[in-house]
Amino acid sequence: MTLSEANFWMGMAATAAFAITAVAAVKNRGVDLFGIVVFGIITAVGGGTIRDVILQVPVFWAQDQSYIWMAAGASIVAFFGRSYLTEGQTYAAMLYLDGFGAAFFAIHAVDKVWKLGFGLPVAPVILGIITAIGGGLMRDVLAGRPTFLMSRELYAVPLLFACSLFAFILAYAPEHRFAGIVGCVGLSFFLRAAAIRWGLRMPRWLLSKT
Amino acid sequence: MTLSEANFWMGMAATAAFAITAVAAVKNRGVDLFGIVVFGIITAVGGGTIRDVILQVPVFWAQDQSYIWMAAGASIVAFFGRSYLTEGQTYAAMLYLDGFGAAFFAIHAVDKVWKLGFGLPVAPVILGIITAIGGGLMRDVLAGRPTFLMSRELYAVPLLFACSLFAFILAYAPEHRFAGIVGCVGLSFFLRAAAIRWGLRMPRWLLSKT
Amino acid sequence: MTLSEANFWMGMAATAAFAITAVAAVKNRGVDLFGIVVFGIITAVGGGTIRDVILQVPVFWAQDQSYIWMAAGASIVAFFGRSYLTEGQTYAAMLYLDGFGAAFFAIHAVDKVWKLGFGLPVAPVILGIITAIGGGLMRDVLAGRPTFLMSRELYAVPLLFACSLFAFILAYAPEHRFAGIVGCVGLSFFLRAAAIRWGLRMPRWLLSKT
Repeated sequence: MTLSEANFWMGMAATAAFAITAVAAVKNRGVDLFGIVVFGIITAVGGGTIRDVILQVPVFWAQDQSYIWMAAGASIVAFFGRSYLTEGQTYAAMLYLDGFGAAFFAIHAVDKVWKLGFGLPVAPVILGIITAIGGGLMRDVLAGRPTFLMSRELYAVPLLFACSLFAFILAYAPEHRFAGIVGCVGLSFFLRAAAIRWGLRMPRWLLSKT
Repeated sequence: MTLSEANFWMGMAATAAFAITAVAAVKNRGVDLFGIVVFGIITAVGGGTIRDVILQVPVFWAQDQSYIWMAAGASIVAFFGRSYLTEGQTYAAMLYLDGFGAAFFAIHAVDKVWKLGFGLPVAPVILGIITAIGGGLMRDVLAGRPTFLMSRELYAVPLLFACSLFAFILAYAPEHRFAGIVGCVGLSFFLRAAAIRWGLRMPRWLLSKT
Repeated sequence: MTLSEANFWMGMAATAAFAITAVAAVKNRGVDLFGIVVFGIITAVGGGTIRDVILQVPVFWAQDQSYIWMAAGASIVAFFGRSYLTEGQTYAAMLYLDGFGAAFFAIHAVDKVWKLGFGLPVAPVILGIITAIGGGLMRDVLAGRPTFLMSRELYAVPLLFACSLFAFILAYAPEHRFAGIVGCVGLSFFLRAAAIRWGLRMPRWLLSKT
């Protein structure tokens, strides 16, 4: 398996995880199969779509439709195999895979935006975070759920740290780009996994209301 | 009346229907005239705007401002003539016209995206559906209403069938494009009209919670 | 100080005011510092981002990142110095500065869109209003708050008047462009300030439900 193939399959796995956690997030609300697939696709590709629209480059899923098929397929599987994939042990594994996916999409987005020389150094970090969280925000808004921005959940802060560090590496040590990708995806995933595993939340002094 | 004139006037009628159903959807919430016009315009042109932004072509209402004027005018008429247009028999007719409008906008969007060769064959179908439902979703989100994605209403499924069929025709029998437009708009409208007329909903086994 | 410097600093002050009023709007909901900064940035630059995406020009904050830094900095200051900046006298001043900012951003947007010759004369007015209110709408939707479109608050109507008047000036008396900018920003600000000062609201006959 070449590096770019490995990359492709990691992207596919992350896409599936995004879609499956989306189904888990909305399924208790009486959504039908059509809605489930819409939410799965939006969650999986929504953030990257906002990124590409802001960058004014062709949206990635029009270039490679595998992302749409994978998101739709994973949503349908999660719909019919619901209690298995959206509850219990398998779902816990999905949460970690979702955290990996967010890290993976965010760091690759920083890399993509940096290569385009778009609004360095701030825009790559912002668009990296949007890529990872934009789809989930759209899903929550369309489903009438409170967005994670209103919770103390440590979801985006790991992404902020990792994207900023990776932008720093691209700016000052671009020869370490590849190690930077691996290390920053790992850092973001590790922080998110720790937050899931030990229920870490934002400390109270960083909350607006205590 | 030439074909392109007929097309233009069908688009105008559909635009008016979208605006009027929007006014009916939000008027009980104490919105003022400014808000009514904003909701009418967003509902009528929002979906096509998302489509054009994703396609990275000039938005259609900047090319031909009639859509904005028609949406604003219809909203104002529906605001002042409210009990007439947004209730009873006339409103029932508006619901059918709205269903026709959704079908008309969706199929024409598939046609537009296909001509641009953008992400064939999946993107035309997705953008066709977005064109028809995007404005209504934006309206519901901005008005704090549950979106139809959270209901069992058969609104988008007819569009999905008709857009997919039309994409199939464009791919394998492009010489029947014109018949395909007429037939697929008709199919989508017929399914939607049946759903309105007989209160059809998604069967229970396609719901995530029963 | 040259004119363009004065313009830059007025834009910075308006950006800060947008971010600070955003913090005031969401801080009672238990948002953490990350969320506060996200809401501040979205409120400050969201509207202009939608405008630039629709115009298909590079987004302004990728060209000049000061807007991002100012919004993030003002949000952080408002977070830690909260009771000072988001309550009482200072906050009242912020509301007026917010009204000035909305007027300033809207009229400059009309000017920018008109220069590009985009969809004259309707699109400049629409995009002017979107520039001023789009970020606040995104904030309210993401925070689960009712948008001001659902209230009788006189927020956008002053912008509509001023943007329309300025478009009229650009169309029929373009030699008065500069006076038009000053006058229309002033008009919009004056109407909004009057609405804040005397609690003006939409008259009942312009409400959909009385």
